[in-house]
Amino acid sequence: MPHQLLLDNIRNFIQLTQEEEELVLDRTTPREFKRGEFLNNEGEVNRFTNFIIKGSARVYYIEPSGHEHVVQLGISKWWVGDFPSFITQTKASMYTQALEPTEVLAFSYENLQVLYHEVPKMERFFRLLIQRAYASFHRRVLEALGMDAEQRYLAFRNVYPEMDMQIPQKHIASYLGMSPEFLSTLKRRIVDKERGRVRK
Amino acid sequence: MPHQLLLDNIRNFIQLTQEEEELVLDRTTPREFKRGEFLNNEGEVNRFTNFIIKGSARVYYIEPSGHEHVVQLGISKWWVGDFPSFITQTKASMYTQALEPTEVLAFSYENLQVLYHEVPKMERFFRLLIQRAYASFHRRVLEALGMDAEQRYLAFRNVYPEMDMQIPQKHIASYLGMSPEFLSTLKRRIVDKERGRVRK
Repeated sequence: MPHQLLLDNIRNFIQLTQEEEELVLDRTTPREFKRGEFLNNEGEVNRFTNFIIKGSARVYYIEPSGHEHVVQLGISKWWVGDFPSFITQTKASMYTQALEPTEVLAFSYENLQVLYHEVPKMERFFRLLIQRAYASFHRRVLEALGMDAEQRYLAFRNVYPEMDMQIPQKHIASYLGMSPEFLSTLKRRIVDKERGRVRK
Repeated sequence: MPHQLLLDNIRNFIQLTQEEEELVLDRTTPREFKRGEFLNNEGEVNRFTNFIIKGSARVYYIEPSGHEHVVQLGISKWWVGDFPSFITQTKASMYTQALEPTEVLAFSYENLQVLYHEVPKMERFFRLLIQRAYASFHRRVLEALGMDAEQRYLAFRNVYPEMDMQIPQKHIASYLGMSPEFLSTLKRRIVDKERGRVRK
């Protein structure tokens, strides 16, 4: 029930009548992607905000030097996409790519503006959602400044244990600002430490 | 007219009736700070979101190493504060400090929750405001990754010319991730270049 997942996500924040829920679902667009396909491209206006039903995706940025930075990761029940491009309807600076066969329910920019008028409570839902996204992005940037690599990985694993299981390590390494080799060494060291602790 | 500045800011995004405007103003708290005083402290829950009427402020973070990072700057008609702390009502990781005698109109967390019920249109106002803050913070982080020092300063001066005039250079340097000496050298180089261009 893809629609049920979305309605559950909305119910975390606001209460809708059944009629309002139907209006919300009427404005969604189902989209499907093969592994490696793009939910939005850099250089084009991102028309959609995407709620992942199944699969996973990464949002990433390519520096002028060619170096890739994963800015966001998403699995089932996460919202993904180049959000700054979506809200300003200007060219995207990031790519959003499916990491496996992925299904989303999306709102196009146009449909979302109509929906805000049809169901004004959705203003509150998206305000709360965006606040949370902003606070977590902010926390992530400060973590990048003030934590060492091990602390960053442990904080990530603690907050997003499911992502740590599902998403390929190379993308998690890029998200945490380290090489895949370094992350792998780090994880071995942490496992050794945690075993040591259990033995005591 | 401090209240007029705030109403003008709100009118950029939504239309309120006169009665609604009065309800909004009734929920504001005027706050005054001397130069160097704190609008919120690190380690305490930030109770206010502050709209600057007069003066200026910086929001900054101190790394465990003791190094300071300016995360946000604000002058008249800007919203400042440790926003992640405000919305989650958890301990602040940043300080917000007045850079000169500064007056703000603030919403306390409690008053803002009441206001959302009294004037539901304010959901839309804060959704749009937060979207914009999120997009601009996001752009800033990507700029830090992908631009050199000169490009970062020129982008800043281009988007925020008034801030470049009003805020002490050392805080702008910290905001842009460079030393004050380096920013000063950079600005001389840019002035020389621009004079050169004019001469041609």
